[in-house]
Amino acid sequence: MSAISPDAGGAAAAGDLFQILRDGRPRTRTEIAAMTGLARSTVALRVEALMRLGFVRHVGEAVSTGGRPSTQFAMDLLGRVVLAVDVGASHLRVALSDLAGSPVAERFESIRIADGPEIVLERIGALAQELLDEDPRRGAALLAVGVGLPGPVEFGSGRPVNPPIMPGWDRFDVAGVLGARFGVPVLVDNDVNIMALGERALHWPGVDHLLYVKVATGIGCGVISGGLLQRGAQGTAGDIGHVQLERATDVPCGCGNRGCLEAVASGPAVARALRALGVDAPDAQAVIDLVRNGQLDAIQAVRAAGRDVGSVLSTCVSLINPSVIVIGGSMAQAGEHVIAGVREVVYSRSMPLATEHLHIDQSRAGDRAAIHGAAILAVEHMLAAERIDAMTAA
Amino acid sequence: MSAISPDAGGAAAAGDLFQILRDGRPRTRTEIAAMTGLARSTVALRVEALMRLGFVRHVGEAVSTGGRPSTQFAMDLLGRVVLAVDVGASHLRVALSDLAGSPVAERFESIRIADGPEIVLERIGALAQELLDEDPRRGAALLAVGVGLPGPVEFGSGRPVNPPIMPGWDRFDVAGVLGARFGVPVLVDNDVNIMALGERALHWPGVDHLLYVKVATGIGCGVISGGLLQRGAQGTAGDIGHVQLERATDVPCGCGNRGCLEAVASGPAVARALRALGVDAPDAQAVIDLVRNGQLDAIQAVRAAGRDVGSVLSTCVSLINPSVIVIGGSMAQAGEHVIAGVREVVYSRSMPLATEHLHIDQSRAGDRAAIHGAAILAVEHMLAAERIDAMTAA
Repeated sequence: MSAISPDAGGAAAAGDLFQILRDGRPRTRTEIAAMTGLARSTVALRVEALMRLGFVRHVGEAVSTGGRPSTQFAMDLLGRVVLAVDVGASHLRVALSDLAGSPVAERFESIRIADGPEIVLERIGALAQELLDEDPRRGAALLAVGVGLPGPVEFGSGRPVNPPIMPGWDRFDVAGVLGARFGVPVLVDNDVNIMALGERALHWPGVDHLLYVKVATGIGCGVISGGLLQRGAQGTAGDIGHVQLERATDVPCGCGNRGCLEAVASGPAVARALRALGVDAPDAQAVIDLVRNGQLDAIQAVRAAGRDVGSVLSTCVSLINPSVIVIGGSMAQAGEHVIAGVREVVYSRSMPLATEHLHIDQSRAGDRAAIHGAAILAVEHMLAAERIDAMTAA
Repeated sequence: MSAISPDAGGAAAAGDLFQILRDGRPRTRTEIAAMTGLARSTVALRVEALMRLGFVRHVGEAVSTGGRPSTQFAMDLLGRVVLAVDVGASHLRVALSDLAGSPVAERFESIRIADGPEIVLERIGALAQELLDEDPRRGAALLAVGVGLPGPVEFGSGRPVNPPIMPGWDRFDVAGVLGARFGVPVLVDNDVNIMALGERALHWPGVDHLLYVKVATGIGCGVISGGLLQRGAQGTAGDIGHVQLERATDVPCGCGNRGCLEAVASGPAVARALRALGVDAPDAQAVIDLVRNGQLDAIQAVRAAGRDVGSVLSTCVSLINPSVIVIGGSMAQAGEHVIAGVREVVYSRSMPLATEHLHIDQSRAGDRAAIHGAAILAVEHMLAAERIDAMTAA
């Protein structure tokens, strides 16, 4: 439900006007006036305010039948930029992206997340500064920062909460530190949430019900329902790695419980199971290599992991009825075997109507999902009608 | 994201203006002008249009410091009514309700859903006509109809789809028939969805993440995520009755599969399990009576059913992280035993952060949830900003 913010003053409709222009189609002031019912003079003022903010630009003249030509306006994809940050356990990717989420410049380097927030945030700052310094206009154009972290995040405060693989990061004020450095709003979320946003933006535009499942060292998913990313009441939505499988109640999990999905189907869990069979599989990467080389035990173990993931996802399908399930994360690189296991169980256990039009596919965005999603997180937040209202009123 | 409808003409902001008044607080034209940034003359025109439609009324004069008093306006809860219809397997409840969803007049009678749509819809029409005829103003005030049916419904078309206990209703045009009779929009949904809406409106206002689980002859749930009822891609969201339990793979289900939740935890399933123990439990009602009389086998069977429901719900908690789970339906009448079983499993299997603030409670709305929710379904649809825009522009 849209509500008009009491302090937006006379510019209340600038945000709504801008939403019309977000489709990228050029329009004249007269066309905008006809679409909004606003007076042509009001439209002119609001378009001017949006141009000053860098959201809208001239795109030429409309050819009219008689009379003088009219100026056309459209959203300016490159008028503002966002800083997108994808932090992994061992990598850091920083990009300046346009208002469609596409990077215009990017840096990548190896890091150790366990070095702690001061060191990692300093590297983010330094790489971002390099990108900003490449073009003197970029600093003024910076609109917001979107960050993905490999652990649970309290979205409202932008702080990690008990992140298992991020020693020193618990409750650290990531949004505050980056906000102080760049002077713009900072949105922080966990990596699977931004991967869901990125995968959808790049490959499933318009899909309103999508699950992005990351199967790697951990297992988790990003939930898009009704068109929106769902974080749940405490921000733990999508945390399916510790759902208990009745068939595995003897397997201990790092969380202190037994029989968790992660304890049997994550990359390290599959490697452990293979070692128990006498196969030389020191880690998850070795599992992927074995599968690629056609090693039968490894293929069967990966497919069994896919079935375990599928048994949890079949309940998820019943509950929220997605039209797309994307399987990503390092284990998805083990070819079609994980997906095959997922499909086998989901299709056999779900009601026909729920799976009739369901796509279960490997991630197509791959390692682009996170950086694109971090940009989308920032863009969607900043381009909401009420935020545009506030900016034009200021 | 709010968008302005191109054909809403000059009245585009009437819907937004009305959203301000939905909190029920009286306001003057000057106050509304300050909140919206609209010219006072524009506010006057739009308030007048909303008054003509019956959505807004005078509520007195504001006391001002000097100058003449100003007229105050507020939403008119009783200016329009909706027809709410709750159809069960063996009952029919029809109400005229105000814009908060509360009934102003109601009829109840026993029916047999298996008599088919012509007979049941004729009874709905007759009871509704009685309610409309009680007060000559009601016919003109009728805004919309909201209907809940005990089976799967394709929400967009208002037709039941393969409803298991509704012979003759498959693909029947319920919305079309009632729409032709009453001349207003008709919204049709399945019963658990409207129960979720009703329970939230009556007892959990402001809760954005709520699951309403009905445990009766069937098992299903209504899913509210991010503040909105979620129907999923094919409208099957919440269909958890046929999730398979690994521990029950020997039990056949009416759906043709084995081990479904419904096959072990529904009312008839519990009665069947008790009869296998030699207990005289012909049906679900007998189970409830036995529990109320303290019969130990019945109490244990009901608690075990609660645990089965809980094992499915623990995955749901991980996926969408609700803050409230409401257990309703006839089996919830077996006192605290079902809930106790649900809690036992959900709290032991879920991650601490997801259950820290989770309430698992019996339905408080009881058999008022559905009729209230049917009204809310209609009200929420009709009072959306863009629909108000369209009505004031017409």
